[in-house]
Amino acid sequence: MLQKPQTNIPAATPVEALAPTDTFIRRHIGPSDGDVLAMLAEIGVPSMDALITSAVPESIRLPAPLRVEDTSNEHGYSTRGESETLASLRRIAARNVLHRSYIGMGYVDTLVPGVIQRNILENPAWYTAYTPYQAEVAQGRLEALLNFQTMISDLTGLPVAGSSLLDEGTAAAEAMHMCVSAADNARLAFFVAEDCHPQTLAVIETRAKWLGVRIEVGNPSTFTPTKDFCGALVQYPTTDGRIECYRDFAKRMHDVGALLVAACDPLALTMLAPPASWGADIAVGSAQRFGVPMGFGGPHAAFIATVEAHVRKLPGRIIGVSRDAHGNRALRMAIQTREQHIKRDRATSNICTAQVLLAVMAGMYGVYHGPDGLRRIAERVHALTAGLARGLAALGHDVGNGAFFDTLRVRLGAGQTASNVHEAAATAGINLRHYADGSIGITLDEATSQADVNGLLRLFAGAQTKSVPMVTAGASCIPPVFLRSTAFMTNPVFHSYHGEHELLRYIHRLVAKDLSLVHSMITLGSCTMKLNATSEMVPVTWPEFGQLHPFAPAEQWRGYAELFRSLESWLCEITGYAAISLQPNAGSQGEYAGLLVIRAYHEHRGEAHRDVCLIPVSAHGTNPASAVVAGMKVVPVGCDADGNIDVQDLEAKATAHAGALAACMITYPSTHGVFEEGIRKVCDIVHKHGGQVYMDGANMNAQVGLTSPGHIGADVCHLNLHKTFCIPHGGGGPGMGPIGVAEHLRDFLPSHPVLRPDSAGRHAIGPISAAPYGSASILVISWMYIAMMGARGLRRATEVAILNANYMATRLAPHYTILYTNAHGRCAHEFIVDCRPFEKTAGVRIDDVAKRLMDYGFHAPTMSWPVPGTLMIEPTESESRAELDRFCDALIAIRAEIKAIEEGRSDRNDNPLRNAPHTAAAVSTDAWTHGYSREQAAYPAPWLRESKFWPSVGRVDNPYGDRNLVCTCDGMDAHR
Amino acid sequence: MLQKPQTNIPAATPVEALAPTDTFIRRHIGPSDGDVLAMLAEIGVPSMDALITSAVPESIRLPAPLRVEDTSNEHGYSTRGESETLASLRRIAARNVLHRSYIGMGYVDTLVPGVIQRNILENPAWYTAYTPYQAEVAQGRLEALLNFQTMISDLTGLPVAGSSLLDEGTAAAEAMHMCVSAADNARLAFFVAEDCHPQTLAVIETRAKWLGVRIEVGNPSTFTPTKDFCGALVQYPTTDGRIECYRDFAKRMHDVGALLVAACDPLALTMLAPPASWGADIAVGSAQRFGVPMGFGGPHAAFIATVEAHVRKLPGRIIGVSRDAHGNRALRMAIQTREQHIKRDRATSNICTAQVLLAVMAGMYGVYHGPDGLRRIAERVHALTAGLARGLAALGHDVGNGAFFDTLRVRLGAGQTASNVHEAAATAGINLRHYADGSIGITLDEATSQADVNGLLRLFAGAQTKSVPMVTAGASCIPPVFLRSTAFMTNPVFHSYHGEHELLRYIHRLVAKDLSLVHSMITLGSCTMKLNATSEMVPVTWPEFGQLHPFAPAEQWRGYAELFRSLESWLCEITGYAAISLQPNAGSQGEYAGLLVIRAYHEHRGEAHRDVCLIPVSAHGTNPASAVVAGMKVVPVGCDADGNIDVQDLEAKATAHAGALAACMITYPSTHGVFEEGIRKVCDIVHKHGGQVYMDGANMNAQVGLTSPGHIGADVCHLNLHKTFCIPHGGGGPGMGPIGVAEHLRDFLPSHPVLRPDSAGRHAIGPISAAPYGSASILVISWMYIAMMGARGLRRATEVAILNANYMATRLAPHYTILYTNAHGRCAHEFIVDCRPFEKTAGVRIDDVAKRLMDYGFHAPTMSWPVPGTLMIEPTESESRAELDRFCDALIAIRAEIKAIEEGRSDRNDNPLRNAPHTAAAVSTDAWTHGYSREQAAYPAPWLRESKFWPSVGRVDNPYGDRNLVCTCDGMDAHR
Repeated sequence: MLQKPQTNIPAATPVEALAPTDTFIRRHIGPSDGDVLAMLAEIGVPSMDALITSAVPESIRLPAPLRVEDTSNEHGYSTRGESETLASLRRIAARNVLHRSYIGMGYVDTLVPGVIQRNILENPAWYTAYTPYQAEVAQGRLEALLNFQTMISDLTGLPVAGSSLLDEGTAAAEAMHMCVSAADNARLAFFVAEDCHPQTLAVIETRAKWLGVRIEVGNPSTFTPTKDFCGALVQYPTTDGRIECYRDFAKRMHDVGALLVAACDPLALTMLAPPASWGADIAVGSAQRFGVPMGFGGPHAAFIATVEAHVRKLPGRIIGVSRDAHGNRALRMAIQTREQHIKRDRATSNICTAQVLLAVMAGMYGVYHGPDGLRRIAERVHALTAGLARGLAALGHDVGNGAFFDTLRVRLGAGQTASNVHEAAATAGINLRHYADGSIGITLDEATSQADVNGLLRLFAGAQTKSVPMVTAGASCIPPVFLRSTAFMTNPVFHSYHGEHELLRYIHRLVAKDLSLVHSMITLGSCTMKLNATSEMVPVTWPEFGQLHPFAPAEQWRGYAELFRSLESWLCEITGYAAISLQPNAGSQGEYAGLLVIRAYHEHRGEAHRDVCLIPVSAHGTNPASAVVAGMKVVPVGCDADGNIDVQDLEAKATAHAGALAACMITYPSTHGVFEEGIRKVCDIVHKHGGQVYMDGANMNAQVGLTSPGHIGADVCHLNLHKTFCIPHGGGGPGMGPIGVAEHLRDFLPSHPVLRPDSAGRHAIGPISAAPYGSASILVISWMYIAMMGARGLRRATEVAILNANYMATRLAPHYTILYTNAHGRCAHEFIVDCRPFEKTAGVRIDDVAKRLMDYGFHAPTMSWPVPGTLMIEPTESESRAELDRFCDALIAIRAEIKAIEEGRSDRNDNPLRNAPHTAAAVSTDAWTHGYSREQAAYPAPWLRESKFWPSVGRVDNPYGDRNLVCTCDGMDAHR
Repeated sequence: MLQKPQTNIPAATPVEALAPTDTFIRRHIGPSDGDVLAMLAEIGVPSMDALITSAVPESIRLPAPLRVEDTSNEHGYSTRGESETLASLRRIAARNVLHRSYIGMGYVDTLVPGVIQRNILENPAWYTAYTPYQAEVAQGRLEALLNFQTMISDLTGLPVAGSSLLDEGTAAAEAMHMCVSAADNARLAFFVAEDCHPQTLAVIETRAKWLGVRIEVGNPSTFTPTKDFCGALVQYPTTDGRIECYRDFAKRMHDVGALLVAACDPLALTMLAPPASWGADIAVGSAQRFGVPMGFGGPHAAFIATVEAHVRKLPGRIIGVSRDAHGNRALRMAIQTREQHIKRDRATSNICTAQVLLAVMAGMYGVYHGPDGLRRIAERVHALTAGLARGLAALGHDVGNGAFFDTLRVRLGAGQTASNVHEAAATAGINLRHYADGSIGITLDEATSQADVNGLLRLFAGAQTKSVPMVTAGASCIPPVFLRSTAFMTNPVFHSYHGEHELLRYIHRLVAKDLSLVHSMITLGSCTMKLNATSEMVPVTWPEFGQLHPFAPAEQWRGYAELFRSLESWLCEITGYAAISLQPNAGSQGEYAGLLVIRAYHEHRGEAHRDVCLIPVSAHGTNPASAVVAGMKVVPVGCDADGNIDVQDLEAKATAHAGALAACMITYPSTHGVFEEGIRKVCDIVHKHGGQVYMDGANMNAQVGLTSPGHIGADVCHLNLHKTFCIPHGGGGPGMGPIGVAEHLRDFLPSHPVLRPDSAGRHAIGPISAAPYGSASILVISWMYIAMMGARGLRRATEVAILNANYMATRLAPHYTILYTNAHGRCAHEFIVDCRPFEKTAGVRIDDVAKRLMDYGFHAPTMSWPVPGTLMIEPTESESRAELDRFCDALIAIRAEIKAIEEGRSDRNDNPLRNAPHTAAAVSTDAWTHGYSREQAAYPAPWLRESKFWPSVGRVDNPYGDRNLVCTCDGMDAHR
């Protein structure tokens, strides 16, 4: 036999032999080590260090590596794999305790239909999609959003609904701003009913303060408005559960020319008269209870709807029906010219995203249940509540004698005290709402069972244990006058998919129409469409993170607290700041919060008058919009020919406004994709004139581990966690926009009226989101990303992002002009390809290039921003060299197609670009009339033979849709 | 203000108001109540009862409703929703305790890559697909299986690998049967090395007994074979971890003309010389550790590979490369004529399914890691094991001095006893292997960390707590002579997708090629492609069910035990039997197990000579194959013109073989889709002549709640849980085939050598699967289905299944001849459409109709079985009326296309049927030469404009592939 080995010989194999094999960095970063070397050679630099040195100014480089969860141990190998990191997070999750929540206040438990959870929430084909700007490859989610809008419009009775807002609180604040801007300037008072949710009131107050709007809180039944009121907000039903009639109040508001906003519960609206029927001009609310987990506060889709007169004031996105080049029905985002990021300093909102994924879920919940199913759910919740009310009354407690839907406010009878009840509740694993007056709030929901209600009655029975009543079915507690008399959700889409098979197939039919990261890279400049890894996404749907009420007692969310603490500390280290607020639930909210922090800082120093905000003309449109929403005056600063901030102009403007200078907003690397050399000087100038520097975090992906906003000298920045830190775009939301601030600003970080975050400052600005920690449940994604990458991986990601961009720029440079590189000819993590010349040489516009890319299987890069007629390409680090090459090959092939037009080999008016995208129906039509071949139309690149994504409609006609605005399914063709 | 409602008025609304709103029956069953009425009217019967009465003979109807989890309470409404049922199962799951398992024996922990778990295992587009018989709409999973075959072929060094078998034990038994059938008849001895896994040996012994094969167990190093040996099995490495050299042994076997089978660990093979290199003719093993959870025993993919000479003896499916009608590469199942269900009583195996979903996962694990990644995992596991060995030796224990890979057998040194170690292990949440001699087995795996190994060392340190060694990296314990010297997995597919984005996109590119239930109904007669609801699927991936070792101590799987108990009791009630064995992990295994139970029963009564099995000629081919594998003689019984069993012939055959009659195998309703009236008489005849009646459970979907095998008079049946009870087909497996038996047979239900199931009989047959409860983890699916449906729902499902079939038959009857209805013109749950006439009238063969259906977006029904030239359609209850209509519309439109040929309006040789399916490339080619239009080819029905599934290849050329057999990726075109 064979020679036997020895088992006791000394260690000899490398220590890496024992390291985990499921490390993440190599899974996240696209190019292999070998690819990186080849790409550096292609660029013509000897090493990664050399590339980074030539792209990033030495003056701003960090002096030392980040100290963030370094997954390398002293031997230089990684000590933690994906599975071990997930196990760590499991232990954190286990510190969250799931009590049954009856707290209400706009957040209730819901039963997420499994088919929706698995096929939408947990499906990368949905969650990795981008905002549907390229409508031809986004018809699936556009249809799902149209369903959502239709449902909201029907439920509220208001004809125009948006495709979602961030949360109910901000939606109410947006509605207030609508009222302000709809009125003449003199109207700067707004009434809020005292029985609105407290966080809604607080978010409105925050917003009102800096806009100079006076908020009056009171009882709508006794309030008499004056002519300085632009509007009022009521909650329907009220926060403590009462259903009130606001018909008279609406009349009083309208009589003085003011508008009425109703914050509504959509489930209640299936039974109750829609707000439009009693005079509301605007309705807002949260669609959370339509199948979206509470998630400790978010993300969920808020809704907003209004009458046609105000459609151009409506914040956020509206999906509309139009037609395509073949005359077929096609959807797209409607009237985008009214969007805030386009209106810049004329904006009346800074909202530029939505909660698409959650709106899709809520809309699909409506599709699955249909109007009868929704009403059945509502009636049951109400019946259980009525039964509970009867039982409580039988126990001697006072539940009032008014109408209610699902919420009671219990004033305890003799023999019971609030502390007894709450103590018994805690023991039973139940959360109730505490009122300051000792009364107790109870809100039931879809997940409540008869047994649950019996359990509640036992809590309130106290000593009378033997005579606890059982919940019984009984009469409704909603008098007929409050009831809805109109049908809703009559469109066939709400009546066709009530079986699981039917819904499954409907969802997958929609999926098949949408291009997402599961198909190909999406090179959106400034939007960082990187890998959303499964290990990051999995914990989002763990119940320990998903099913917590945002106002649960602190001892129930210790896991979240730990998560927040570590995430805050990592983000502080990454940004170079002293403190982080996780509250802002979108990038735009981060900008707004950051600017308010600056304003509060000035105010605290007795300089409340400082209200000028300098913004380079190259800035994203949300920057000026946010400044306006923060009540600031925008002063634009020019750019030089290289796309850099014109430092002379900045200095001039800063000097001119020195007495009033509040802030300067900058983006770094610049929106032109370059690390500007003069950035420290910009900060110095602003500081010298008494201003604070706000840094837009959109391009953070180029900074992490190499430099940081704090290191550069900015005072505050926001982070788009849905960009740099791997929260998926969800087809246009959810996002998260935490802010980081330097030490002198930490005292002003936002607070919350119900649950004060640990990060809230001593002189905190009010809340800017409805929930204390924003969309808390998706923070686990960024946590996993940072924990799995560690300092080494994060820096490597930044380096490879810069490498990938420079590699693509190098490959494309012989074919296209690359705009705005630095002195060494380098871009940062993105670059701009100039397509402007082709309009003249070939009649080819930027749209034609973008749509033609679809025929190659690609989503267009960012188009015409920041420079009209260009494409801004950001490849991200998670794309492989093969994928970068494929995209470059497509653009090079398109350049050859343009050349054919230029040289007269292809017709200027009938060519594959002009007619792009080509649908399967178009290329297989019997009547092909084009001067180029079908195969050239559909299969211009070899990889398309292996795998072809077909756009489901031809080029969408935007003006047609805007001229004939239809925003609900009912505007669809009759045949479905 | 409004009139206030009263809260204390007595109950008045209906009691249903409080019932759960997430009930399942209406989600599972396709047609709404209104649809049912309309469909009954279309059929021309007044009520469901009338339909059922006319379809199902009164004589066999159950006298009383089932008593199964009735979800209706005394008020007639459902008391349990989906969420509550899931909560119940959560409580059951919580009774399972997850210890870290080092038991080994063929089952180890593994790290399932998240991207594979989410996008394959949890993706209905993969798990709801059918067996890839229709290759043109199955190229995705065919490619994934080809990857699996290539990986196995490379690892074993054997050129032909199958696309998976059920488990390692049955694969070894199949390999033994291959040896038997490859040899001349005189060779009926088979050697099994004593250090094989005990369950493998036991499964082989069960199989050998009834085939008359003598098993000799011994030490291969000392065994000298004689000419009566057909083969031998060795385990590589051995069950206790030793790596032995079998080169001499192989030579000794070959010298007597016998074959050598090696049962291998695929991870070890990345480091070790492949079995082919030292003389193995056949290799088998389990791919479980390649990213498939243990699942308390299954499902996993076993593999088998051999040399080219034995390809036609290879059991199970082989995927092969061929070409399509356009000359492009296309995959399909190769040389199907060698499949067992076609060979019937000439079969040498009864395997007719595979573990496709799990083979796809394992293959994708190989794609994700690539050869270097797999070897890195193997080297780390080995390094940890070597470190453990050194540590144990330092503690004074004997781990031998042989070569090992990941498994040690520890003989304890002085100062430690086995019971101490096992006790300490239990306390630490660790499972070790117990050997009868007091030695202890430890098997490490991919999930083992350094800390885990240190923990193991502490267990063995006993009192020497202060001097516990820590695991260190050290020399390999595999001497060079054992090491692999050849490259493996060199194909580009194993080198291209190591980043998560790349793999994600590769998975989704494959998905896009496959038609599954997420697209449209799959009306496979006898295969019951019903809804696999999400709530049924979700628990499969709960760790409490997925991560248990099948030989874990009983106190760790109390949850499973409870699940088995309730599932067995429900299935007893549904089948009318006394006992159930959950062990058989496929329908064919159920048949085999049921027949062995019958044989054991006869043997126990001293009638071991009874070995004749009567099988109607209409039976599925697996029936005779199973009878052969059970060592029985098949005697066919004729059918009459109506497709019913020819009772006279049956009586004649039974009489003729009365002395030797063992069993009769019947299918009910018949394979022709009719409830035969004479079924009780058939049973009586068989019993009268001393035989037992075996009922094939394939058509159980037509029986549940209306009749039962036990009630009809059969003695044993199997249940295809993957048909009637909602386990998805997984693209061709996993399945589960438990058997039910009458009281007199319960003593013979299968046992297991390691863990005796509760259901094992006193005179049990040996195990027929490697794991005691088969593919335990997917039993949760059937549990959820039954629990959510309850007795009322289950019966309703059966009724609607019969309704749907009769509705479709009614709609199609004016256009096609419907074969084999009963005396009232009714079918059962499926029916047969005759397409034979069209060959003569239009030159249209059944294949043309099947492939043309793809152009309409549908998978073909069961084709040419049981009657050549026909389609057998089984719609199932979960398809909506709209979907049934769409399918009927497609078939009716195809009939019109045939008529056009018949009438000369369409060319006999160039028509949309003959050229079907049409790919996107084909209809957009510049060179369209057909006499019909592109639009007629691609868009023959209106719904295709809304949603079109494109076959990825044209008609596959099967003979070409069989003539040029290529079963690995390396036979692919160079360009990928």
